[in-house]
Amino acid sequence: MKLQLALDGPLNNSLDILHAVRSYIDIAEIGTPLIYREGMAAARCLRKTFSDLPLLADLKIMDAGDEEATIAFESGCDFVTVLGVTQDATLQSVVEAARRFGRQVMVDMMQVPNPVARARSLLTMGCDYLCIHTAHDLQYANASPLDGLRHLREALPDAPLAVAGGITVQTIEAVTALEPVIVVVGSAITRAINPARAARMIRERMHFTL
Amino acid sequence: MKLQLALDGPLNNSLDILHAVRSYIDIAEIGTPLIYREGMAAARCLRKTFSDLPLLADLKIMDAGDEEATIAFESGCDFVTVLGVTQDATLQSVVEAARRFGRQVMVDMMQVPNPVARARSLLTMGCDYLCIHTAHDLQYANASPLDGLRHLREALPDAPLAVAGGITVQTIEAVTALEPVIVVVGSAITRAINPARAARMIRERMHFTL
Repeated sequence: MKLQLALDGPLNNSLDILHAVRSYIDIAEIGTPLIYREGMAAARCLRKTFSDLPLLADLKIMDAGDEEATIAFESGCDFVTVLGVTQDATLQSVVEAARRFGRQVMVDMMQVPNPVARARSLLTMGCDYLCIHTAHDLQYANASPLDGLRHLREALPDAPLAVAGGITVQTIEAVTALEPVIVVVGSAITRAINPARAARMIRERMHFTL
Repeated sequence: MKLQLALDGPLNNSLDILHAVRSYIDIAEIGTPLIYREGMAAARCLRKTFSDLPLLADLKIMDAGDEEATIAFESGCDFVTVLGVTQDATLQSVVEAARRFGRQVMVDMMQVPNPVARARSLLTMGCDYLCIHTAHDLQYANASPLDGLRHLREALPDAPLAVAGGITVQTIEAVTALEPVIVVVGSAITRAINPARAARMIRERMHFTL
């Protein structure tokens, strides 16, 4: 089980946090707000500073699969995200770009109407990870990705699931019990008083390891 | 009726094209691929170079409405896009951010399952424009936004509709007959041998003007 750290804040602050938590995390996510602000300069900076750290670009591709995924892969990213609600043509062209670069695709399952049926179809198309994700704007209403994760895990016992959306030190054990292969944590680490301590505590509570 | 030019290519090339076509266009769109590459540096550069040109950031917001829209508004953009498939909480927070800055919101209707019902709801929420958009990856299959635009125009005669996706000098008149308030053109201008000539021809064929 891998721990992915979502970096949404300013680049300098994200670099400081990464230096502090590097030993506890497996993947650094260049979050959508960070991409909007800095573009792929953020990816190139992280790649240069942390040469062996897997990087995910949270592009949430919706429109031009190959062209948009290629921008991230050429900037040193190992994973890109695409929205599960997009048309199959876009998903397929993201997967094709990933295969060409030897990289991987995570599908963000936000707002997908029939997640189990769509998940099966996405895996058939060659998507590598399916991420059950509670939107930032729903976390204020105490929404959590746990029910969605449980639903998919029960229907697809062996699927490579990821999970994101407000996961904390308090909820990590309930999440890991459902055996996602990637757990995405953001503000519970990046906004902690002591990010390294928060990352260590979360890592220690991730029981299932792959 | 306004002509919006979608800029997806490299920033320097986009600047050259904008200088050539400035007098024919009403809005410059910082396309999603350009945002992925350059972030809001692209917006700041266009704002500095063309102080009176309305700018739209094609963010396709899906997750964190206020935070993500604010990034574009603070960088000088006049419009942002949000996906119509996103949760209402995100749409509402994009609209709130726009009202706070005195700016506007365009909804990208790609992949919206029931566009007429959703369009009504989006207008009630305060969204300013609804864009019928054929994805880049569907244009290879000769898909066009014309049927979708006609469907929404018939159901909502007064709605502030925009339209995007492979519109050319050849198709502009069929599009304008359906009275969108904004027509988005990209490669038919940006990849033309003579972008200024293509922009002028498209502008001349836009009969309905607001």
